[in-house]
Amino acid sequence: MDRDPTPDDVADAAERLDGVAVRTPLIEAPALSSRAGRRILVKAEPLQHTGSFKFRGAYNRLSRLDPATTPGGVVAYSSGNHAQGVAYAAQMLGLRAAIVMPADAPAAKTRRTRALGAEVVPYDRATGDRAAIAEALAAERGAVLVPPFDDPDVIAGQGTIGLEIAAQCARTGVRPEAVLVPCSGGGLSAGIALGLAPRLPGVALYTVEPRGWDDTARSLEAGRTVTVEDNPPSICDALLVRRPGELTLPILVAHGVRGLAVSDAEAEDAMRAAFAELKLVVEPGGAVALAAALAGLAPGSGPAVVVASGGNVDAARYAEVIAAS
Amino acid sequence: MDRDPTPDDVADAAERLDGVAVRTPLIEAPALSSRAGRRILVKAEPLQHTGSFKFRGAYNRLSRLDPATTPGGVVAYSSGNHAQGVAYAAQMLGLRAAIVMPADAPAAKTRRTRALGAEVVPYDRATGDRAAIAEALAAERGAVLVPPFDDPDVIAGQGTIGLEIAAQCARTGVRPEAVLVPCSGGGLSAGIALGLAPRLPGVALYTVEPRGWDDTARSLEAGRTVTVEDNPPSICDALLVRRPGELTLPILVAHGVRGLAVSDAEAEDAMRAAFAELKLVVEPGGAVALAAALAGLAPGSGPAVVVASGGNVDAARYAEVIAAS
Repeated sequence: MDRDPTPDDVADAAERLDGVAVRTPLIEAPALSSRAGRRILVKAEPLQHTGSFKFRGAYNRLSRLDPATTPGGVVAYSSGNHAQGVAYAAQMLGLRAAIVMPADAPAAKTRRTRALGAEVVPYDRATGDRAAIAEALAAERGAVLVPPFDDPDVIAGQGTIGLEIAAQCARTGVRPEAVLVPCSGGGLSAGIALGLAPRLPGVALYTVEPRGWDDTARSLEAGRTVTVEDNPPSICDALLVRRPGELTLPILVAHGVRGLAVSDAEAEDAMRAAFAELKLVVEPGGAVALAAALAGLAPGSGPAVVVASGGNVDAARYAEVIAAS
Repeated sequence: MDRDPTPDDVADAAERLDGVAVRTPLIEAPALSSRAGRRILVKAEPLQHTGSFKFRGAYNRLSRLDPATTPGGVVAYSSGNHAQGVAYAAQMLGLRAAIVMPADAPAAKTRRTRALGAEVVPYDRATGDRAAIAEALAAERGAVLVPPFDDPDVIAGQGTIGLEIAAQCARTGVRPEAVLVPCSGGGLSAGIALGLAPRLPGVALYTVEPRGWDDTARSLEAGRTVTVEDNPPSICDALLVRRPGELTLPILVAHGVRGLAVSDAEAEDAMRAAFAELKLVVEPGGAVALAAALAGLAPGSGPAVVVASGGNVDAARYAEVIAAS
């Protein structure tokens, strides 16, 4: 696809993902709603294949390739959720996959990526540019580069979450007033905006970023791409992107999306709330939308749907956060 | 109901619970299947209201009471999952609820039970008999005593899990060879036996208990009620029952159920596997069926469904288990 994705593309992605991706549940707990002062429903994407929403976009993109005419397979650069999503989708579809990862990436992450059948191509984080390395590798092999968010099929795949939210709310008679979505490059939130537009046209959509990494919030306010600089450290490793995507920002602008930001402490608090009340493991970046809802950052008192986008967190780190409650 | 529960009672319970209980997902991860040497599907009851399957049986029982003619409400004795299930069902149905709990029960548990609208009636664990206290209280108030497992409506309610497993497997084209279920008094496993019987008649059903607390396994082998004595300590706090129920054991026998047992170390290992691969918080007792499957205790190599029955575990304890990986 070489044009902007549309709601029809999201519907098409939903057909491809039917019976392949997990139709993750929309879960809730009275204690969370009571804390937030409004009904809170959580879209549980940690239960998705490979532990995050990224599988949806990756599968939607890769399922359009023919393994017979794509012997070079696919290439992606990521040390996190996108890598696993691409690796697993490639394995399911019989495509070769190479993931460009820093040579000093945690052993657990490279092991996990290899266990999903992908080749790990290490690079030196100090001297190498991972995007350039991935592009060169793809060119050399005749492989297809799969970007983490700036790709119409990837965006449309993530958007299937919006379709599911609308259907799940309709089934239970819930009329959401707000939908809150964790945001790095904006692929997830842009996709959800497209997925929700025809079905819940009045709903207020919010991106949620780590404080100091709120390039999307600032860009939405300014009406143009803003790059954030001098970023503080953040525990939300999945969301550390300095500017929104070229395809994603215009979609967010067109749908009147607004941006919110939360602190690391608020993200950790949301991780503990998800543990205690939902029994769901959520990684720091995956918990920011719940954090924003619990902190009352989105106006209104009607039902709010929050996306918990992933649950890939190191055991020792998770134990530390949970035990601090 | 004053007779043995039947498959029809389970179907009736499913109608009452429709739109009220969470239809919990059946989730899986390639890494778990690969470890077990067979396809493993996990019925995720930690995502049920109050974090365990107990809500199902409680709601099915309580929904048959008329609040207007039951001003004394309901009484239960439990310091765990049954207490929360009864409290929440009573709150939903507008019934008064009193839970008899040890005076030295963890503050978090009494707080949680009160937050669900129930009255906590403390007793002295050293001198009091909680069943007798609950019976006396129920008689005094004209309240209905809700037993944790030896009750036809409670059993039928838990059995809705069996119906859902059969339907979810049918939808995805899976023919399970075995179903493994955590077991204390046998309400969950007896209910599931009834729920599965008409739909998956050939499936092998297993109860799983903590080692040394395997009264159901021994009773099934002996063909009569066996009480276990001199039990070792176990971390599986939800499963520490010394003999099967009077209603439950005959149902298990009639359905050819067999019994398995696992060690604490195996239960902890399954908790870590559920954290890492499923992003699901599972308490020690809730993890024993997954533990048995991972340890290869159930014969066969066809697909196995394991029930993860609950996720109510103290944060500090959970952190300790997870960090030990």
